[in-house]
Amino acid sequence: MSREAAFIAALRDLAAHPAARGLADDCAVLELGGETLVLTHDAMAEGVHFLPEQDPADVAWKLVASNLSDLAAKGAEPLGVLLGYQFGTDDARFLAGLEDVLAHYGVPLLGGDTISATGPQVLGLTALGRATHRPAPSRADAKVGDGLWITGPVGGAMLGFEALRDKTAEDSRVFRRPLALLSEGWALAPVVTAMMDVSDGLLLDASRMARASGISFAIDSAAVPIAAPEARRAEALRWGEDYQLLFTLPAGAEPPIAAHRVGAACAAGEAPVVLDGIPLTEASGLGYEHS
Amino acid sequence: MSREAAFIAALRDLAAHPAARGLADDCAVLELGGETLVLTHDAMAEGVHFLPEQDPADVAWKLVASNLSDLAAKGAEPLGVLLGYQFGTDDARFLAGLEDVLAHYGVPLLGGDTISATGPQVLGLTALGRATHRPAPSRADAKVGDGLWITGPVGGAMLGFEALRDKTAEDSRVFRRPLALLSEGWALAPVVTAMMDVSDGLLLDASRMARASGISFAIDSAAVPIAAPEARRAEALRWGEDYQLLFTLPAGAEPPIAAHRVGAACAAGEAPVVLDGIPLTEASGLGYEHS
Repeated sequence: MSREAAFIAALRDLAAHPAARGLADDCAVLELGGETLVLTHDAMAEGVHFLPEQDPADVAWKLVASNLSDLAAKGAEPLGVLLGYQFGTDDARFLAGLEDVLAHYGVPLLGGDTISATGPQVLGLTALGRATHRPAPSRADAKVGDGLWITGPVGGAMLGFEALRDKTAEDSRVFRRPLALLSEGWALAPVVTAMMDVSDGLLLDASRMARASGISFAIDSAAVPIAAPEARRAEALRWGEDYQLLFTLPAGAEPPIAAHRVGAACAAGEAPVVLDGIPLTEASGLGYEHS
Repeated sequence: MSREAAFIAALRDLAAHPAARGLADDCAVLELGGETLVLTHDAMAEGVHFLPEQDPADVAWKLVASNLSDLAAKGAEPLGVLLGYQFGTDDARFLAGLEDVLAHYGVPLLGGDTISATGPQVLGLTALGRATHRPAPSRADAKVGDGLWITGPVGGAMLGFEALRDKTAEDSRVFRRPLALLSEGWALAPVVTAMMDVSDGLLLDASRMARASGISFAIDSAAVPIAAPEARRAEALRWGEDYQLLFTLPAGAEPPIAAHRVGAACAAGEAPVVLDGIPLTEASGLGYEHS
């Protein structure tokens, strides 16, 4: 196990609080005063999670939207965010993007902290929400026989990233300004058996849901909607940052919103994901992992 | 106004949510499900908030304790923390300190995020609590005539920092492992008119309470307990990171715990703090400000 993996495993042990599922499940879930609180925290670093030359307004948008996407996957209504901000090269642009995204989702900035430091800019955001359906969906409750569904296409962020990196005329908006599917999450929360957002790639995130649920997923690659040329289907299934919702429903059930059935849960095999009949393990490259 | 000050002012405007007091008041306060939630987020950077050669276990301790101190000042009981962790030179030592401080305060790690990035280590922590007394005390409600009190001495962190920096045999524990005065905060919350923790220096933090409350404080420097030689009293009143609680009580009232009366609130003058009869403004160096 790598140094990082060992640290994360130790943090997960630390986070094994009876009332909370923390690092093991992206969001923490906490019962309080007749409400179910949902909390998530993401950190982003310049040069790792965003390009140094990217518009800080887009960085702000994505920092907030990616955290709200975690709340969406819990069917949670956002109550507010707290920002950890390291001053950068254009703080006014960051603020403009922050105002945009908070206004778009009607979410207040509750507080935070600002620091000056040398080195690449590091940003942190905590989002707090309340579950609209209880219990809040988990990624750990998919059952053998369930259908596996996704809300929309993957691969768009990949094309957007390439357009931005290569400075082409292609539209990079899907990468720069992803949407958090909040209302979709609220509609799905009462009916799903498991749910999460796809931030690190469909195959990798599906494998995490499979491992957490103690099942495997058989996925039909042709059934996955992609926002990329057909020749790049394999990449689109592995690229992250599209922030679609991935969820399971009992066999035969139909979702209350438009979505695509891409596979089914089967008894746990050695591989968490079987793609078109071929077992895929983490070692064989299910996607990419931010570290 | 500096670039940083303008950004912070703009963030404060953004944070002017009717249900929340965010960056303007350190902690956000949010009513939910019959409870009052209190949230705070602090970021710390290597080389700014901690020394590169410091034991990461002490850094972890201080990161958590300084956030819990913000909850203490609201009379809040901690419900948990979320960690934004950038991998550093000795993650195992950081984890050991994190375990220590969470066990000491009985606070769960609810979740968080880990990142790898080049450059100085940047850490973020969000602490969530519930108010034990409602409304939670604010720093903005000191009244003319109130007495100004502090729970204990200042200046200890200054000596501890110097011991650590200069590698002397003096005890640096007060700087390395500050305590969050949670039970003191709980005892005080029902009786204070205003309360905050002293993180940036007694005079600077008192001036903030004065500005927020629309009053001025007359402070008697000789009445302030210090944990430093008498010759360094003026510095001790300006040094931060001792995490004492600073609070006001109606004239004649006595606190329910041991504390020291150091001054009184008077009608707002031009200076937020009058020390031994001498008006002090922010420009004249009330303390130091982390940026």
